[in-house]
Amino acid sequence: MSWQENLRDVEPYVSGEQPKLPNIIKLNTNENPYPPTPKVKEVLQNFDAEKLRLYPNADAEGLQDAIATRYGLSKNQVFIGNGSDEVLALSFLSFFNSQKPLLFPDLSYSFYPVYADLYGIPYEKVPVAEDFSLNLSDYTKGNAGGIIFPNPNAPTGLLVGLDFIESVLVHNPDCIVMIDEAYVDFGGVTAIPLLAKYDNLVITRTFSKSRSLAGIRLGVALGSQVAIKKLDDVKNSFNSYSVDAFAQAVGFASLSDESYFKKMCTKVIATRNQFAQDLQALGFTVTDSRTNFVFAKVPKNVSAQNLFDALYAQSIVVRHWPNNERIKEWLRITIGTDAEMAKFIAFLKEYIDGQSTI
Amino acid sequence: MSWQENLRDVEPYVSGEQPKLPNIIKLNTNENPYPPTPKVKEVLQNFDAEKLRLYPNADAEGLQDAIATRYGLSKNQVFIGNGSDEVLALSFLSFFNSQKPLLFPDLSYSFYPVYADLYGIPYEKVPVAEDFSLNLSDYTKGNAGGIIFPNPNAPTGLLVGLDFIESVLVHNPDCIVMIDEAYVDFGGVTAIPLLAKYDNLVITRTFSKSRSLAGIRLGVALGSQVAIKKLDDVKNSFNSYSVDAFAQAVGFASLSDESYFKKMCTKVIATRNQFAQDLQALGFTVTDSRTNFVFAKVPKNVSAQNLFDALYAQSIVVRHWPNNERIKEWLRITIGTDAEMAKFIAFLKEYIDGQSTI
Repeated sequence: MSWQENLRDVEPYVSGEQPKLPNIIKLNTNENPYPPTPKVKEVLQNFDAEKLRLYPNADAEGLQDAIATRYGLSKNQVFIGNGSDEVLALSFLSFFNSQKPLLFPDLSYSFYPVYADLYGIPYEKVPVAEDFSLNLSDYTKGNAGGIIFPNPNAPTGLLVGLDFIESVLVHNPDCIVMIDEAYVDFGGVTAIPLLAKYDNLVITRTFSKSRSLAGIRLGVALGSQVAIKKLDDVKNSFNSYSVDAFAQAVGFASLSDESYFKKMCTKVIATRNQFAQDLQALGFTVTDSRTNFVFAKVPKNVSAQNLFDALYAQSIVVRHWPNNERIKEWLRITIGTDAEMAKFIAFLKEYIDGQSTI
Repeated sequence: MSWQENLRDVEPYVSGEQPKLPNIIKLNTNENPYPPTPKVKEVLQNFDAEKLRLYPNADAEGLQDAIATRYGLSKNQVFIGNGSDEVLALSFLSFFNSQKPLLFPDLSYSFYPVYADLYGIPYEKVPVAEDFSLNLSDYTKGNAGGIIFPNPNAPTGLLVGLDFIESVLVHNPDCIVMIDEAYVDFGGVTAIPLLAKYDNLVITRTFSKSRSLAGIRLGVALGSQVAIKKLDDVKNSFNSYSVDAFAQAVGFASLSDESYFKKMCTKVIATRNQFAQDLQALGFTVTDSRTNFVFAKVPKNVSAQNLFDALYAQSIVVRHWPNNERIKEWLRITIGTDAEMAKFIAFLKEYIDGQSTI
């Protein structure tokens, strides 16, 4: 027997590559092309380095208050973690402690099965429909130990309405229903109003996408006081001080500049809509994305793998899942600046012209 | 049946209070009284806020290289996490996946049983000796699923030698032995040289104490490539980007200024030794602390609880475990500045004089 036999067996999540290419156009991990609010620079100028000798506020209280105010909730309905991945990881550990299976779409955030495997949570991947939409009837059987899906979903970009979510909640009073709103600010509809009615609803948010702060790691869970208290207790059984003092200050600064935030979201949405149109004009099929990416199927005479490689050779990096039969001819393309997307389209035009003449 | 029945049952760790008292002398959570290296200010001045729109380097590679170089290890022997609490939390999940009990001293970091309970890891608290020292024979029976203890230990401050640790390793080839070196820079002896010989040894470190960076959350694990790879896989099943971009830069800056680091450690050690002497002169019993705190038993005519309360009333906050029978007459006092410790001693003199005249 060796000490290595005591090691936990896991199959880790593989996130989008962080390639070091010259002049890269990085459209593979849904980062925002625009910088965070200029108020973050002010935080850098004014932050007291000496303060770092002390532990941060364990609950990120200043930021917690600001988020509660922003969403019309009470402070003890707000949990803040080290990125929404940590919030999700702690939520799985806190909430899905059932013998019944956790349900999530088979086409969704690929970290969900990784969390479930890590903790030994039983789960079922629920197939999405032919058009990638979620079938309500799959989530209303009342046999779940938990339910989670992103809304809008990734990588499909598709949104369900609040009526869909409310119906899921009505049919699942015995488990936590989590709605992962990572992309909601780019055209989604938030489930926050349903928190007043359903104490088993938990919503997660991130500062990484719409707030241009992937580098600082800030994620949020919103829910009933009982659910958030449990999440807090589990966090305090894992890492009491998970959000550092600087990140707390940066998050607070971001929340204090809503006009910049809205302006940047509007910009990304406009670019996305134009880009989706341009793709369609070139023969791509696109879903109705309400996110900061477009999910696009290549035209019939094009191979997604070849196109992915050709783009990569031009230092344009997108996301592709070649081993997933169902979406192997699809690419997920993050929305960059207008200039970046124009370069992308210009390259595509040439590439597709080249293909048709072969 | 309610959704609340699916929630995980935990008893969270309770960290030292973060009281908001005016002119507080905060000696309860082993923070460093001195600021981090002035190079941290330079990071604040030079950090590019716009970079925060991108995800950080998932492995904190620049910092990883610097730590590897600093300790004469290879890069893949270094794991970096969001504070050593996260490193410990992920280590418990990664390494102690055995039916046999994890062993740790009954008087030790009180987060250990919390982690074990969170994951359902069986454990045994091994009683320390009358003088709080660890009995080697308790850890050499070869029946453990894992072993962990801090060296120097907390709250006792006591150090074991490398011969002790090597003997534990020799007798436990079938499990991971973790040495928590949170306080090692204040007069401990590191087990790093043993890494060359024992691939089941894992050492944890923190930037919170000796590097005055509790606010930025940086912890480290050092071990064999196999052990560190496992820790990395588990981290990537939990939170791919757990150390933010700013924290990585700050950690790098701290490591680049070893002369400041050593100067501050020397200062804290000198203050500790003087303070321990002063306490003994007042009738306290102290352990031979090799940390940035002193563990002290109150004189016979003094009650630790009353003294704790009297200190608190003066905005001097220390740590006390009134519910632990064995140490309820002991206080753990973090080393502050010379001026703070002088105030502490001055108050004590008055307090003890007051007691003897009652």
